[in-house]
Amino acid sequence: MTESSLIGFTKGSVTDATFNATNPATGETSETSFCHASGEDVSNACQLASDASLAMAALSGAQKGSFLRDLADRIDGLVDQLVVTMTAETGLPEPRVRGETGRTTFQLRMFADLVESGDWVDARIDRAQPDRQPLPKPDLRSMLRPVGPVVVFCASNFPLAFSVAGGDSASAWAAGCPVIVKAHHAHPGTALLVGNAVVDSVRASGLPEGAFSLIFGDGRTVGQSLVKHPAIKAVGFTGSRAGGRVLFDLASQRDEPIPVYAEMSSVNPIFILPGLGNEKMSEIAAGLQGSATLGVGQFCTNPGIVFYPRGAGGESMVSEYVEKMKESTSAPMLHKGIREAYAEGLDSLERLDGVEVLVSSANDTGQGQCHAGACVLSTDSKTFLSDERMVEEVFGPSTLLVSYETPSDLLRIADFLEGQLTASLFGEEMQLSEFEELLDLLETKAGRLLFNQFPTGVEVCPSVVHGGPYPATTDGRSTSVGTGAILRFARPVCYQGFPDHLLPDELKEGNPMEISRHEA
Amino acid sequence: MTESSLIGFTKGSVTDATFNATNPATGETSETSFCHASGEDVSNACQLASDASLAMAALSGAQKGSFLRDLADRIDGLVDQLVVTMTAETGLPEPRVRGETGRTTFQLRMFADLVESGDWVDARIDRAQPDRQPLPKPDLRSMLRPVGPVVVFCASNFPLAFSVAGGDSASAWAAGCPVIVKAHHAHPGTALLVGNAVVDSVRASGLPEGAFSLIFGDGRTVGQSLVKHPAIKAVGFTGSRAGGRVLFDLASQRDEPIPVYAEMSSVNPIFILPGLGNEKMSEIAAGLQGSATLGVGQFCTNPGIVFYPRGAGGESMVSEYVEKMKESTSAPMLHKGIREAYAEGLDSLERLDGVEVLVSSANDTGQGQCHAGACVLSTDSKTFLSDERMVEEVFGPSTLLVSYETPSDLLRIADFLEGQLTASLFGEEMQLSEFEELLDLLETKAGRLLFNQFPTGVEVCPSVVHGGPYPATTDGRSTSVGTGAILRFARPVCYQGFPDHLLPDELKEGNPMEISRHEA
Repeated sequence: MTESSLIGFTKGSVTDATFNATNPATGETSETSFCHASGEDVSNACQLASDASLAMAALSGAQKGSFLRDLADRIDGLVDQLVVTMTAETGLPEPRVRGETGRTTFQLRMFADLVESGDWVDARIDRAQPDRQPLPKPDLRSMLRPVGPVVVFCASNFPLAFSVAGGDSASAWAAGCPVIVKAHHAHPGTALLVGNAVVDSVRASGLPEGAFSLIFGDGRTVGQSLVKHPAIKAVGFTGSRAGGRVLFDLASQRDEPIPVYAEMSSVNPIFILPGLGNEKMSEIAAGLQGSATLGVGQFCTNPGIVFYPRGAGGESMVSEYVEKMKESTSAPMLHKGIREAYAEGLDSLERLDGVEVLVSSANDTGQGQCHAGACVLSTDSKTFLSDERMVEEVFGPSTLLVSYETPSDLLRIADFLEGQLTASLFGEEMQLSEFEELLDLLETKAGRLLFNQFPTGVEVCPSVVHGGPYPATTDGRSTSVGTGAILRFARPVCYQGFPDHLLPDELKEGNPMEISRHEA
Repeated sequence: MTESSLIGFTKGSVTDATFNATNPATGETSETSFCHASGEDVSNACQLASDASLAMAALSGAQKGSFLRDLADRIDGLVDQLVVTMTAETGLPEPRVRGETGRTTFQLRMFADLVESGDWVDARIDRAQPDRQPLPKPDLRSMLRPVGPVVVFCASNFPLAFSVAGGDSASAWAAGCPVIVKAHHAHPGTALLVGNAVVDSVRASGLPEGAFSLIFGDGRTVGQSLVKHPAIKAVGFTGSRAGGRVLFDLASQRDEPIPVYAEMSSVNPIFILPGLGNEKMSEIAAGLQGSATLGVGQFCTNPGIVFYPRGAGGESMVSEYVEKMKESTSAPMLHKGIREAYAEGLDSLERLDGVEVLVSSANDTGQGQCHAGACVLSTDSKTFLSDERMVEEVFGPSTLLVSYETPSDLLRIADFLEGQLTASLFGEEMQLSEFEELLDLLETKAGRLLFNQFPTGVEVCPSVVHGGPYPATTDGRSTSVGTGAILRFARPVCYQGFPDHLLPDELKEGNPMEISRHEA
């Protein structure tokens, strides 16, 4: 069977260039083949999105909310099919598929709530002062409006929650933008299941055809031509540092540069402060093992580097952690490319002078050549600080344990680190005041700071920040998780001297939407 | 006499490479010479800014407010000196200098109000739910924090309000960022007067030395090395499209890309709808002349292209406008480079097929070779739509009048336009409902839409948007005027599981700053 892209309400070209999904657990190939989109498919999708821009921008919060809720219901209804297709395409276990389905539909409904209430638009009102001296003040009112068509790249590690109808798409639709999704080669069947649901919701909710297209194809050709297309006004991406940077560079070099929100690379450092008791250190070892191996280490917030005090219970924490990691079961990673990158990353790290291997990742990659085991490496802070390659992310269930001698080592370490999604501190609450400088420094390096908590398990809520300075993302002023993600796809527009009936409802004098506004 | 850069609290190098200011009205050269900053000056300024980052970020709103108010007072006290220096360097008349001084200190105090109240930080609070099933919810709180050291380029056309202590610097300081200002070659003495006041305020307010440096030098060498320096985290610029794009490209190509807020190029189209009476058309001709020649046409929001209905009073408006523009007095532009670019821009436009010259700019450039007169060109919409060069900004007091036949011509024109700071409609209120599609389209093209008002005279207030899609700016999600400008220099940071005493005041449980917060 052969499937092709979804270009608005029609099917894309049936081309000779096809690809199949592979089960990373077994190496089996899917029966269904997926056609690479043609150049015409790409330009048709972009044209449809462009044509849909004004109609999408004109949708009320209620209309957008109704679409997002309808889509959430449809995806909930697909969960049994998703369990079959997604487990086969990703090797992820059934509970993860059900959990991620719930996360996805929760996000869609969260954005529905947000746009129905309408508060997100940062409405600002300065009323006219006709008698002001020396000049009258005009009436000015501003609010956030959609940026236009958005391209979203499916994330390999979140086939639902950061793919076709995931956080990037949901926030772009919520802002009033048409969305073109580029499917990930590893889970096209999952993408198509959700993609068909989106098309059904677009039709059922009366949205314009160009509100959504789903493109199958190679990132280097099809993906890049999407980013270069003049109709596209912003890009959402979750993936590798190299991949994100290519898209960012392309987008910056366009005649009209556009923003790229690429969430890329983070080692999510953990700082264990000195002076914790054995019980606490033992708890940390256990919690760290859970966090480091969750989802075979394939979360963006996976804790890759841990700084622990030499002596002071540090060594016993290390031995406990090593024992636990040795017991971790090997499991399939998402696809061969990720498994190979894991092996290469470990190999580079192991070769660095002064790095010791405490737990070696199993070489047996299993039937699907994708299985990977946990790995633990260690070094000391002096060695760590001497080589920039130490800070490179190894995507997978590995940990680099770095011992330090004095609190001032921690400042040097924090200064040495690149931008991160998260940074976590473990310590006694009383003691934390001594480390305020470390906290201040880490704040400049990470989007989310945690105290006595592990960084995996990202809450979806208004306060969360899933972002951070480069290379964590290409735009450290943004979050890709939580309600704040909508701000990525909006721009302020000011209306000066407008008659009330032509203002958007959010800015009308009577405040018919009853939203909170900044009024002067 | 020789002056050099201000590197924190010390003077920069006295170098052999110097430049002088020239009076554009008379051609006279300033007695004072200004030394180009050395490479060491630049790296010292960046190092100081970097060293000051944490201390600046730790300032309370009250401390920042106190600094901004102290600086505003000092600049108010300088006004008589500014009148002397700035008129000599720019040819601008005394009332303009006094007016722009007031605008500058108004902006500083506006940002003081903003940070003292503290509401701007978008504080968000999600409280812990320890009993939530299946997993407890942690406590998450987020707010905006400063991005780090910012480089600000002085604008040629706003020697005070968008220069050393202008809107970009004020908003960056308000956000808690150190600022390095690159002076404009045309008004170094004005920059130094204000720069010395900033140094005094930094000292008096107890801010760290690196809170401010002022760099003299060439944009292509010194300016670019500032943008490339790893310590710099954002850039503010107001100037030409070519200049802004160079900085944007440099910043995007860095190992760590940084945002550039360049406000560049806009023709600020004016659409005169059909059906207005003669009296109204006559009013428009008069208002347009005032707006187009204000400040010798050297405002970013200068209305460069006007679309008017053929017949229906359009021709009489044109003849009235032509008469008024003929009567406009020639006056010096800001410097020779701008005057030459004006001549070249007019020359290119005049050579295009189908463009007619109705008022020719005087060739007499006066003693300082900078005088320029008003110019009016005309064409029809068909000709206009056939050549992309028609939409290029000619910086100066010139207007291209474009006749159209039918309302649908206006849609084609709006679609053809590039991104703009502003777009203005003139018409009867009753009639505007027929042009909703035009309004929707213009909303995607401009940061500020005006009804029956001219775009010059930008209000400084919370609702204003001085920004717009490329090439109006390099970041259409931002405004460089008004309180919203602070958002350019901030990024969200989330604190998860933090003890209350270590949270920023804005996020503490008791809300000691009494700010408005989003609490779930």
